[in-house]
Amino acid sequence: MPGGPETNNRMKKHTKGTAHPKGEFALIEWIRKNTPLKVRKFPIGIGDDAAAVRVVSGELIVLTTDIILEGTHFRLPEATPYHIGWKAICSALSDVAAMGLRATAAVVSLALREDLSMGFAKRLYRGMAKASSEFDVAIIGGDIGSWDGPIAVAVTVLGETGGLRPIRRSGARPGDWLMVTGTLGGSSWGKHLRFRPRLNEGFILNKTYRIHAMIDISDGLLADLGHILAESEVGAILSAERIPISSAARRGRARPLGASAAPRFSLKSGKSALHHALYDGEDFELLFSASPRESQKILTQKPLGRLRLSHIGEVCKKKGLFILYPHGNKRRVEPVGYEHFRTKKSS
Amino acid sequence: MPGGPETNNRMKKHTKGTAHPKGEFALIEWIRKNTPLKVRKFPIGIGDDAAAVRVVSGELIVLTTDIILEGTHFRLPEATPYHIGWKAICSALSDVAAMGLRATAAVVSLALREDLSMGFAKRLYRGMAKASSEFDVAIIGGDIGSWDGPIAVAVTVLGETGGLRPIRRSGARPGDWLMVTGTLGGSSWGKHLRFRPRLNEGFILNKTYRIHAMIDISDGLLADLGHILAESEVGAILSAERIPISSAARRGRARPLGASAAPRFSLKSGKSALHHALYDGEDFELLFSASPRESQKILTQKPLGRLRLSHIGEVCKKKGLFILYPHGNKRRVEPVGYEHFRTKKSS
Repeated sequence: MPGGPETNNRMKKHTKGTAHPKGEFALIEWIRKNTPLKVRKFPIGIGDDAAAVRVVSGELIVLTTDIILEGTHFRLPEATPYHIGWKAICSALSDVAAMGLRATAAVVSLALREDLSMGFAKRLYRGMAKASSEFDVAIIGGDIGSWDGPIAVAVTVLGETGGLRPIRRSGARPGDWLMVTGTLGGSSWGKHLRFRPRLNEGFILNKTYRIHAMIDISDGLLADLGHILAESEVGAILSAERIPISSAARRGRARPLGASAAPRFSLKSGKSALHHALYDGEDFELLFSASPRESQKILTQKPLGRLRLSHIGEVCKKKGLFILYPHGNKRRVEPVGYEHFRTKKSS
Repeated sequence: MPGGPETNNRMKKHTKGTAHPKGEFALIEWIRKNTPLKVRKFPIGIGDDAAAVRVVSGELIVLTTDIILEGTHFRLPEATPYHIGWKAICSALSDVAAMGLRATAAVVSLALREDLSMGFAKRLYRGMAKASSEFDVAIIGGDIGSWDGPIAVAVTVLGETGGLRPIRRSGARPGDWLMVTGTLGGSSWGKHLRFRPRLNEGFILNKTYRIHAMIDISDGLLADLGHILAESEVGAILSAERIPISSAARRGRARPLGASAAPRFSLKSGKSALHHALYDGEDFELLFSASPRESQKILTQKPLGRLRLSHIGEVCKKKGLFILYPHGNKRRVEPVGYEHFRTKKSS
C-alpha cells in the first residue's frame, strides 16, 4: 500500500569511534525500534550515512549530522582550532560522499569553553570556511553556545540528489566485488585532522557507474564493511594482501604534526600494519560494492584519476566476514572497529 | 544581476541566553562578514531564525540548528532527561515557527557523559520522540558520541515552505503594530523545559495574514525585538502596560517542578514582573509585526483560538527602542537580554 503507514526502521551508527561503543550501539538499536518513519516521505531513515526526505515538489534531498567531541575525536594541542573546524565539516561531508551525492549547504552548532579566546574561535571558523570553500558547500547558519565543558562541534549537511539515486548500504549482492579508495590505517596519527572527504569521487562513481552499496570508512574497514553486510544481509571475504595499507600504518608510529604535536598513541603500536588498516577508524575513504563487470570497468577507466582504487574482496551469500591470508589460510573476523577491539582487549 | 555573486550577509544570534554573550556576538559579527552567500541559491543566510535553500527543483526549504548545553540551557536534576529531549527538539522547532513554516524532519547530534545510564539516554530520547510526534516532525537521523564532558544536544530541523513565503526578521515597517503571543517572563522557573513551540500558530499567521516580520522570543523580548529592529532598520515604542506578563514573572519565584527540583535563581528575584517579561529569555513565544489594519483583523478574528495575543507597541521610523510607561513617561532602553543585562550589572 504505497503512501500507507509503512515504516522504515533502518538504523545507522553515525558515531565515529567514540569511547563508549557498546552503550551507543545498544541505544541506537533501541532508537531504531522506536522510530517508525513513513517510507514515501522518508525513503531513507536512521540507518544509513544520510537520511533522505522527499520534499513537497517531489525532489529527494538528504540530511546528515555529525558531532565531533574534544577528547574523543580530537585532542588539544595536537588538533589546532583550524584542524577542528576542518574535521567537523569534512566528517559530515564524508557521509554525503558515501551516498554518492553532492553537498550543498551546512549548518553548524558549536559549544565552546568560555576560556577560549576569540582568536581560537576565529581559527576554528577559518578551518570550517576553508573546507566549505574547497568542497563548494555553503555554511548558511549556526548556533554558538559557551559553557565550561569541552569543545563540541555538530555539523548538519544538506545533500541534493538532482535526480541521482542515493547509494545505500543495503544494496550489496552476492558476487559483487568490494572496492576501496585510498589507503587505510593509522589515521589517528595525523590524517584524521587533515583528510579530504571523497565527495567528488562518490559523486563520479554514482553518476557514471552502477554502484550497489557504499559507505565511508569512519569506524574502521571491518566495522563499516560490517554495516554494509548487515544492511544487505550478505557476507564477504576479503583478501589480506589486497588491503591498501597506508604508509602511516606501515610505519606504525606518528609523524609529528608540528612542534607542539603529541602522538596520541605509543610511538610503536605493537600491532601489524594490516591490523591498523582493518581496525583503525577515521580513514574517511569510500568502500563500495559493484558487479564484477562494473568493477572491472571502473578499474580500467580510472574515473578517480590518481586516487588509488583497490579491489579487496567479494560479497558472498553466506553470512559472516572472512579474511583470506596468503598461503590460503582463511579466518573469520568480527566486524568491529578499533575502539571496540580495544574494549574487548581490556576486558 | 540575478544569480550573480551578490552576497547575503545577514547574521543571526542563534544562542539562547548563553553565559558568554559578548564574545559570541562579536564572533558572529565577524563570521557574518566572512561568509558570503549566493543570494539566489540561499535567499536567507546566516542572520535569521532559519536559513533558506532553493533546491534543484526550485522549491524553497529552510534549515535551522540549535544546541542546548548542560549548565547553560538546563541543569540536572531540575531538568529530567525527558525534559532535555523535549527542550532540544522544541527549541529548534521554535525557529521554524518564527519563519511561519511547517517543520518536517529533524536530525539530532548528541554528546553524552560516559557515566550516564542507558535508562537516562532512553528517557532523553522519549522526550525527543514525544515532541516530534506532538509537532509531526520525524526524527530521521542522528549521531551519538560519548565523552567525559557535560550533555550537549544539537538539533537541526528541516522546514518546508510548500510555496509559502518564509517570514523574515527584516520586514518590519514604520507604522506596523507589534504583537506577541502568550505571556512573558520567568521561563527559567519551569516553562523553559516544558514550553510548546508556536509552530502551528506561526504557520496559521503566515498562511492567513500578511505578517511583515517575525521572531521567536529566546533571548528576551527586548533583545529579540532588537534583532527585528536592527534587521529592518527601524525603531519601536512599546507600551509597558500592554506587555503580557506571565504568572511566573508576577509571582517572581519558582514553582517547584517536583521533589528534586531546585530553582535556578533566588526565590525572590528582587526584580519587577515587568523586568522579567522584558529581559528574561526562553519564552519561545512569537513576536511579529503587521500593518495596523492587518493587526486589527488578527485581533478580531482570533485565528490562534484561546492563545493570548497582545498588541504591545508600534514600529517607528526613528531608530531606537523606547518604552512608554503609564502617566506618559518614555524611556529609551537597550535591546539586551537577561544574560547581557546581568553581565552589565556585574561589571
